[in-house]
Amino acid sequence: MDHDLDLHAEGPALTAALVDIPSVSGEEGPLADAVERALRRLPHLRVTRHGHTLVARTELGRPQRVVLAGHLDTVPHAANFPSQWDEERVRLTGVGTSDMKAGVAVQLRLAATVGAPNRDVTYVFYECEEVDVARNGLFLLSRDAPELLSADFAVLLEPSGGVVEGGCQGTLRAAITASGARAHTARSWMGKNAIHAAAAILDILRAWEPRKPVIDGLEYHEGLNAVAISGGVAGNVVPDECVVTVNYRFAPDRSGEQAQAYIRDLFAAWPVEILDCAPGAKPGLTAGPAAAFAKAVGGAPRAKLGWTDVARFAELGIPAVNYGPGIPEIAHTAGEYVEAAPIVAAERALTAWLTA
Amino acid sequence: MDHDLDLHAEGPALTAALVDIPSVSGEEGPLADAVERALRRLPHLRVTRHGHTLVARTELGRPQRVVLAGHLDTVPHAANFPSQWDEERVRLTGVGTSDMKAGVAVQLRLAATVGAPNRDVTYVFYECEEVDVARNGLFLLSRDAPELLSADFAVLLEPSGGVVEGGCQGTLRAAITASGARAHTARSWMGKNAIHAAAAILDILRAWEPRKPVIDGLEYHEGLNAVAISGGVAGNVVPDECVVTVNYRFAPDRSGEQAQAYIRDLFAAWPVEILDCAPGAKPGLTAGPAAAFAKAVGGAPRAKLGWTDVARFAELGIPAVNYGPGIPEIAHTAGEYVEAAPIVAAERALTAWLTA
Repeated sequence: MDHDLDLHAEGPALTAALVDIPSVSGEEGPLADAVERALRRLPHLRVTRHGHTLVARTELGRPQRVVLAGHLDTVPHAANFPSQWDEERVRLTGVGTSDMKAGVAVQLRLAATVGAPNRDVTYVFYECEEVDVARNGLFLLSRDAPELLSADFAVLLEPSGGVVEGGCQGTLRAAITASGARAHTARSWMGKNAIHAAAAILDILRAWEPRKPVIDGLEYHEGLNAVAISGGVAGNVVPDECVVTVNYRFAPDRSGEQAQAYIRDLFAAWPVEILDCAPGAKPGLTAGPAAAFAKAVGGAPRAKLGWTDVARFAELGIPAVNYGPGIPEIAHTAGEYVEAAPIVAAERALTAWLTA
Repeated sequence: MDHDLDLHAEGPALTAALVDIPSVSGEEGPLADAVERALRRLPHLRVTRHGHTLVARTELGRPQRVVLAGHLDTVPHAANFPSQWDEERVRLTGVGTSDMKAGVAVQLRLAATVGAPNRDVTYVFYECEEVDVARNGLFLLSRDAPELLSADFAVLLEPSGGVVEGGCQGTLRAAITASGARAHTARSWMGKNAIHAAAAILDILRAWEPRKPVIDGLEYHEGLNAVAISGGVAGNVVPDECVVTVNYRFAPDRSGEQAQAYIRDLFAAWPVEILDCAPGAKPGLTAGPAAAFAKAVGGAPRAKLGWTDVARFAELGIPAVNYGPGIPEIAHTAGEYVEAAPIVAAERALTAWLTA
């Protein structure tokens, strides 16, 4: 079925229309088609497509260029599709409302209504942000056509509660293995129980106190959690191995290497295998285009706790911030919603910034 | 591939041949086929098959009948397959050597060489002893064809170090569930980590002290172990559930009901689900055919710590003991082995008892 998006609808209505085109990661095709058709009707934009990722650029020869980026995909539905308005049309509930169809709606409204921005704008709508980094549309674009992303500054319209969220925390996962020796459970004292031994790993996790460093004036908040545990051979065997997988969310004053070293040191008594590691990004709100942007849109900036593609822009050497109308605290929950007013407010603030 | 067993080979060589036919629980088919072919070549036995369980009976009209029983399956391989002799052919290493291909070899040798025993003999070779009781071949036989098991006495050739082991301990498995609340790991303090919470379950296991009651003169030794642990939703989610499966080995002075109550009480802070429970059997070596058998084969009887199907015979009202050439202490270990001499000795002792 072909969907038609009306970019002249108000942001909240456009958000609902975007939510109602299913687009779980890997299945963004129909939504990407609809966005592409809408963008190609706008004569001031040059549109290119890469998989289910769309890039639309103004080419006005402005001295500065900014990227406005957002992802098209959502996490799997949880009995929260399609979207539903409450009676007063104040709150829209549904999968992806906050994360991040509301932000995508703001991007599309700006693309349609700001024909002659004061900076050249590159709109990026990308696929597969919610899954494996190897499928991430922004990653694929940065690898295959990095020139399309070149810019002086980038805004990621991830949910940030309508305020600027600076930088982002890094994330790594590590597997920590407790070992033992197998034995028949009828004579368990002949062996060494690896699951019992893993309690010492959990003790470290239970006793761990999070760092909350302040970086460029923003307070981060780390986290260290077991996200999986597995062990066991058979119902009558003392197990010889138990693996605890931990997820460390680290503030951006630590590099990926430092975070890995920290985890290896914390669990020095066991073999530690780093499964993946994505460093964070410092907020960079003290100077340059990020500081100017924060001043222009107003509000008190805060730290971004989740990992976002801001870190990817940081790797490309492009200052970037998170700024979007969604509510980050309820992303990925079954009760995810967004409010109408912040969608309109974000569009207004960004329009003012692009036309001042 | 069809395997051919030579029952005229010595017990140790036959043991190696039996080990080298893979027969992890559920995959006993090829071994059962080989045993069946070998048994059907013996004209003095009436052979019937039930799944992968074989029953071979003499029908000589003797006033007494004894069952000689052993299981065909092994625990999963642990880089200990196929079998290996040491240089002097004294020690055979490999999965199932002690538990209990050596005992099965003795059964098969007796079946082939003792054509006119002084008691009628029922040889039972059964499947799935190492797993779920519902799949246990002896259990299935006792349910579907109990007349095939009727006897005055039973010897289970489980590994007992070449001495009579009396009774057996009971065994139960229970699942204990720690709960929590999901959250995104970037804001883990919004949730409650169930894996971290499960550490308190492991603490109880680590602190537990085993009972060692003396019953009919034999000392038992209890055990309580985590045999499995699992928890985790996704790499970026604080998990809301962690399940610890424990195995309690209890002395035969506790009934199954008492053992269950003990575990529910010990882990009263969590939901406890009893997965299975097989009560033990008291030694009963103070009188009757068990006492006579112990006297005939010699040695100092000791307590059987593992659960064995002796308990099933006890339920059927048939006195039974464990007596086999394997070494119970190393059953289910990666280094499991058996020695050649006790295999020959057990065959000799049982032959003497059956032909005296």
